[in-house]
Amino acid sequence: MAGGVSRRRMLAVGGAGVAGAVAAGAAGVWAHDLIAETPHAADAGGAVPFLGEHQAGITTPAQDRLHFVAFDVITDNRAELVDLLREWTRAAARMTAGRDAGPVGAVAGPAEAPPDDTGEALGLPPSGLTLTVGFGPTLFHDPSGRDRFGIADRRPPALADLPHFLGDALDATISGGDLCVQACAHDPQVAVHAIRNLARIGFGVVSVRWSQLGFGRTSSTSRQQATPRNLFGFKDGTANLKAEDSSLLRQHLWVQPGDGPEWMTGGSYLVTRKIRMTIETWDRTSLAEQEEVVGRIKATGAPLGGRGEFDRLDLTATGAAGQPVIPRDSHVRLAHPDTNDGARLLRRGYNFVDGSDGLGRLGAGLFFMAYQRDPRRQFVPIQTRLARHDAMNEYLRHVGSGLFACPPGVRADDDYWGRALFGR
Amino acid sequence: MAGGVSRRRMLAVGGAGVAGAVAAGAAGVWAHDLIAETPHAADAGGAVPFLGEHQAGITTPAQDRLHFVAFDVITDNRAELVDLLREWTRAAARMTAGRDAGPVGAVAGPAEAPPDDTGEALGLPPSGLTLTVGFGPTLFHDPSGRDRFGIADRRPPALADLPHFLGDALDATISGGDLCVQACAHDPQVAVHAIRNLARIGFGVVSVRWSQLGFGRTSSTSRQQATPRNLFGFKDGTANLKAEDSSLLRQHLWVQPGDGPEWMTGGSYLVTRKIRMTIETWDRTSLAEQEEVVGRIKATGAPLGGRGEFDRLDLTATGAAGQPVIPRDSHVRLAHPDTNDGARLLRRGYNFVDGSDGLGRLGAGLFFMAYQRDPRRQFVPIQTRLARHDAMNEYLRHVGSGLFACPPGVRADDDYWGRALFGR
Repeated sequence: MAGGVSRRRMLAVGGAGVAGAVAAGAAGVWAHDLIAETPHAADAGGAVPFLGEHQAGITTPAQDRLHFVAFDVITDNRAELVDLLREWTRAAARMTAGRDAGPVGAVAGPAEAPPDDTGEALGLPPSGLTLTVGFGPTLFHDPSGRDRFGIADRRPPALADLPHFLGDALDATISGGDLCVQACAHDPQVAVHAIRNLARIGFGVVSVRWSQLGFGRTSSTSRQQATPRNLFGFKDGTANLKAEDSSLLRQHLWVQPGDGPEWMTGGSYLVTRKIRMTIETWDRTSLAEQEEVVGRIKATGAPLGGRGEFDRLDLTATGAAGQPVIPRDSHVRLAHPDTNDGARLLRRGYNFVDGSDGLGRLGAGLFFMAYQRDPRRQFVPIQTRLARHDAMNEYLRHVGSGLFACPPGVRADDDYWGRALFGR
Repeated sequence: MAGGVSRRRMLAVGGAGVAGAVAAGAAGVWAHDLIAETPHAADAGGAVPFLGEHQAGITTPAQDRLHFVAFDVITDNRAELVDLLREWTRAAARMTAGRDAGPVGAVAGPAEAPPDDTGEALGLPPSGLTLTVGFGPTLFHDPSGRDRFGIADRRPPALADLPHFLGDALDATISGGDLCVQACAHDPQVAVHAIRNLARIGFGVVSVRWSQLGFGRTSSTSRQQATPRNLFGFKDGTANLKAEDSSLLRQHLWVQPGDGPEWMTGGSYLVTRKIRMTIETWDRTSLAEQEEVVGRIKATGAPLGGRGEFDRLDLTATGAAGQPVIPRDSHVRLAHPDTNDGARLLRRGYNFVDGSDGLGRLGAGLFFMAYQRDPRRQFVPIQTRLARHDAMNEYLRHVGSGLFACPPGVRADDDYWGRALFGR
């Protein structure tokens, strides 16, 4: 049926297919053909199912490219916001299936009207696109404490503003946001196309507060993936929570019944940190010092004192002079669950390079993203410890920060991003 | 032999392989095993040959990702600059072959020394990496007119400063540069790794003036490639010069004997323009108006009045009311060789998104790059006409500009980037 044609076929079939797609869209059956067999996984060109108990893009094996955007809501009209969330949901379902953002598409429909897709992804496959939405603290209370949308009483206690961490050098213009959307795909043009079309659809209701492109995912989120390297040249994410760890995911990732307001059950909290790396200083540091700072062997990713990447850290081992083999101020020790009362994160960060820093150096670093069940018991205590003691801080500067409540997945045709939050 | 091992194999063979590689590097035979059979072409993972009559990265089928950097030279010592160009050439030859930037590599050598590669590309294939160098006008005369490096008399007349074009809104901090390096690859991590290691090697001699990441090449440079779409959603580069057009390349791309100073023979001039697109305005323009502005059909890329993408433009055709079918102020008409005394360019641009523009919109656009035999007869007259008349100007703003003389290729072991310029 016409509702199932891809961007590629849409072009080939031309006008007739378009008319059919419009009819299917108007009938409101947009979600029916978007449910695939496999849960949230795709090859390089394939589609990741949009519907599900949880949002895709969290435990989905991390795609290679990121476009992340934070929006400010510029209306105080609740109905406008809810209408936008509905429209975004339909567009997200279409785009993740490799289709145009709207039923008319990029190149058909009346010539006197703007197209309902911008066209730069025409002919490109779905590319594993996932779109993941989140709600920031300021959606519940604006900076003056006002309840703009009548949802202040539904703000989860776990969505508590992050504290100031030692050394934070945050720039407000690349921090915060009322809403966020994370687009991940194997093709940056597909990720950019998706965010750009959501911004287009949101014209007059939201404006772009900040956005971030990333590449070379720094953390694998599945045991099917090799561990990639960050811009320090080290494997990153060896001990990350993985999609296959079902019971750990319940314990550390997904909000459980009774954790807080019911609308977040099955969701997860996202913390983003834009972390500038002073790679020029790092690059003049000896290999031995780099390995002491990280606590791992650069070549293999093995913990100091170990032999293989996935060897368990021996935090008690000591060297000839009685010093710990894994230094007290090493990153891997301080971030390890054993040092943090068992707290773990599902990290999903990306490398970035944003031109130059104006001081003759590349503006490079890590766009850190971590999903978790409760930041108050996970990111906050871990980062408090790292900010105080981590030897790596000499080479890092946290310049942006975000916190978002990512609701559970969209489960059916009449569902939309945030229905449980707004739908009463 | 050890000199031929890839990054991947280097890791596997460990210490013994490293020692062999060091020996091979010290013997000065670095280039021998870098010459492959095929001229400047590679599959997604393969290596593009570094040595050749022309530099790779110009007619090489455009890779999907870009990291472009412009450097300022911060020394006045000619010998230091020449030494750097020699060292860069060796590192470029290694990295384009998928090897570490230096013979010791990222994870071996003495623990008390910084590694001579930063490591984030360990385990990644060559990914079609090309590195292309260029010399800016300010390398020949600094802004005060001083001949810093004794090469002022070798400045090619074709490397004349670009004029101010109508509507230019150039930001000096993302314009110009004494040197540039264009890194193109199928993997952004590989392109970023290459530029980052060149910057590392250049510490104390050069500093990063500006850098730009790009994706989704906007112009195909080979008939093997489908025409990609720019962020206006249109196919871009249909009528571009292609690698297969040998006689056109001699006429329009490569500097010929007698064109100017002999050291540039076989080279080409690069013009870069960072062009912000006001995509939000464009997205609210009707399909018909978009097609009139561009002069092509959005779906197929065919010229207005034509049927297929590669149909010849009929600039004389008129409609029922006598108006030109391809409007007088359309981009395709104004940029067409027939409107420009036959002048043509080899375009090699990339899309970019740099966060937000601070006004609630994505900071998106086109990083335009065009290679040519003489900008005075190609880019300058074409852009003068476009700046005055192009209907597309309503949606564009030129914010950065660069001009570089890209010398011919490195041809042998003792050759290096710019030897013909400096080696007397």
